[in-house]
Amino acid sequence: MPEVSEITQTEIFEAHLGGKLDISLTTPIDSKRDLSIAYTPGVAQVSNAIHENPDLAKTHTWTNRLVVVVSDGSAVLGLGDIGPSASLPVMEGKSALFKRFANLNSIPLVINTNDVDEIVETLVRLQHSFGAVNLEDISAPRCFELEEKLIEALNMPVMHDDQHGTAVVVLAAMTNGARLLNKDLSSLRVVISGAGAAGIAVCAMLLSVGVRDIIMLDSQGIISSERQDLNSIKAQYAQLTNPRNITGGNAEAFENANVFIGVSSGTIPEEHFARMSKDSMIFAMSNPNPEIDPAIAKKYAKVVATGRSDFPNQINNVLAFPGIFKGALDAGARRITQEMKVAAANAIAELVGDELTNEYIVPSPLDQRVGQKVAEAVARQALLE
Amino acid sequence: MPEVSEITQTEIFEAHLGGKLDISLTTPIDSKRDLSIAYTPGVAQVSNAIHENPDLAKTHTWTNRLVVVVSDGSAVLGLGDIGPSASLPVMEGKSALFKRFANLNSIPLVINTNDVDEIVETLVRLQHSFGAVNLEDISAPRCFELEEKLIEALNMPVMHDDQHGTAVVVLAAMTNGARLLNKDLSSLRVVISGAGAAGIAVCAMLLSVGVRDIIMLDSQGIISSERQDLNSIKAQYAQLTNPRNITGGNAEAFENANVFIGVSSGTIPEEHFARMSKDSMIFAMSNPNPEIDPAIAKKYAKVVATGRSDFPNQINNVLAFPGIFKGALDAGARRITQEMKVAAANAIAELVGDELTNEYIVPSPLDQRVGQKVAEAVARQALLE
Repeated sequence: MPEVSEITQTEIFEAHLGGKLDISLTTPIDSKRDLSIAYTPGVAQVSNAIHENPDLAKTHTWTNRLVVVVSDGSAVLGLGDIGPSASLPVMEGKSALFKRFANLNSIPLVINTNDVDEIVETLVRLQHSFGAVNLEDISAPRCFELEEKLIEALNMPVMHDDQHGTAVVVLAAMTNGARLLNKDLSSLRVVISGAGAAGIAVCAMLLSVGVRDIIMLDSQGIISSERQDLNSIKAQYAQLTNPRNITGGNAEAFENANVFIGVSSGTIPEEHFARMSKDSMIFAMSNPNPEIDPAIAKKYAKVVATGRSDFPNQINNVLAFPGIFKGALDAGARRITQEMKVAAANAIAELVGDELTNEYIVPSPLDQRVGQKVAEAVARQALLE
Repeated sequence: MPEVSEITQTEIFEAHLGGKLDISLTTPIDSKRDLSIAYTPGVAQVSNAIHENPDLAKTHTWTNRLVVVVSDGSAVLGLGDIGPSASLPVMEGKSALFKRFANLNSIPLVINTNDVDEIVETLVRLQHSFGAVNLEDISAPRCFELEEKLIEALNMPVMHDDQHGTAVVVLAAMTNGARLLNKDLSSLRVVISGAGAAGIAVCAMLLSVGVRDIIMLDSQGIISSERQDLNSIKAQYAQLTNPRNITGGNAEAFENANVFIGVSSGTIPEEHFARMSKDSMIFAMSNPNPEIDPAIAKKYAKVVATGRSDFPNQINNVLAFPGIFKGALDAGARRITQEMKVAAANAIAELVGDELTNEYIVPSPLDQRVGQKVAEAVARQALLE
């Protein structure tokens, strides 16, 4: 059921000519008088005022509405480690989405090092230039350490969107899916395929809202405390998940599962989905090829979602990150807490309201209400903390 | 002769509310189709193409039209070392001028370190994010070392505008002033008051075009090879200037001078200007208070210029830097050479043309022709090199 007419390569490259972002001025520079206000000598009064009262930088520069999209280009879309320069079109796109869906200014900063401490050091040196940091397309497990260190080092909202944006929208979708199935989240058996940035964050999010039975799969099979080949973050999640101590692979993991969450790359044979519980949910979010063809998934699940725009129920981070950053900045929040992310997920889920069907569990990425509603919910939560 | 009506503090602060820059999109994101072009999955084709052919980053991202305005806030206007955050309104203003007068995109990056090597390291890590670097308001003598190291480290145009923008416009003004006085540049006796970033660069520029008799003054008097208190750059210029080996202070320096160039701060007693040659030029560029009241300067000089917008002959860097960077980027230049700066100065001087009078030796900063004419001259020179 493609909703998007065929897009040619020419069309894509033409849309990218000269880049996708542009600077404009908020104050005119058309007369000597304008120059004297926006530049010398007038501007010296503003600089002097900020020097005396640093808080004025939030109101009298553009920084408090400016999110930098930061990447080292180490895990870009399905392309992998293509480096900073080649990652730029993606980062410009991300910045464009911030503007389009939350009216926040955003610029990409791509960094030519994969060293976590060097990235932190670079952003610490530049910290007075912006108001928030969206980490993007940084490979796991470095992304976990990087985000943690940056949150400690910077006095501003920092979020790795590949982790938390995904987790927020999955929670929103699962909340509405559970409503359709008339089940409590805490009663669901969940399989997460993929233990990278998104998989780990989705798992952490579901645990935080009371989901108890989660099995994670990586390329070697079920993550369990018996595995000897786990990196430190997977070893940590081996303790937090898999309460029934299942070992093995897809066959064992899928048995009687209520929810499948695919954040890997690569497909999974249909036979495994056949092992799931009746009235289940399948979120096959691998891009561009879902873990299972959505049309086939419907044979086994009441609710099917993907990451693609040409199928119903698109689980798209753009529902979350613009509003999360806007809410955090509006509230003057120094951190984006777990509670703020849950508030964002609930706001997204609630927008579906009474229109809930198994083909409409999350709003459209183009739904103009979403950014503002998420921002309000996040800001409200931030002010409670 | 103020041309600008009084500007209130309220008006200045209101113009700065929320900052002076804004991001906009060059491609629409209004439909699922748009999203598929500007973001996933379409954008992956562009990233992949850049990965295979890095040159495509110049045409298919915004970086090749993007100048970063970089400062550590160590020498901001007349305010001194106010630090990165307080310097931001000035840097936003500078970015706004790039857009307004050369249609280049520009963003400020303020850096929270005064260490030259750390600033270089930071920009090297970020180099794939932009196409050129305008250094701004960085204290001397660190600014000389920083610019030199950055030019070596980065494969793109780098220029410290406080040095070279000033030097280019001074040369343009002096070229036209010499035309009015019917003199060769090489015959002029020049006094430069101030041996910081601007003074040194003006001196280097004038030497490069054949001016032979330059005396530099710093706060301790005439810079000569007999001085024991000079930093390394001043010691170097003690060798390049002062061919008549004058020692002393203003009294000795001004004797029979043809040109005074003030790039210090602080005023100079009228009696010294009285010692200048007849038919001289006085460029009293200290801001906001010129070294001598322009009305009084007219008693001693045929041509009087200042840095202020409310007097004739405003020597304003904005005549130079937008077009210099635009020309360099248009030509794909890796360096901004001395010859390119001289070409810029000549282009500025030539725009005055037959309208030359002692109250019109340089175009107005708002003259819409300047940016493009300078860019063309700089690009033409760059392509010759």
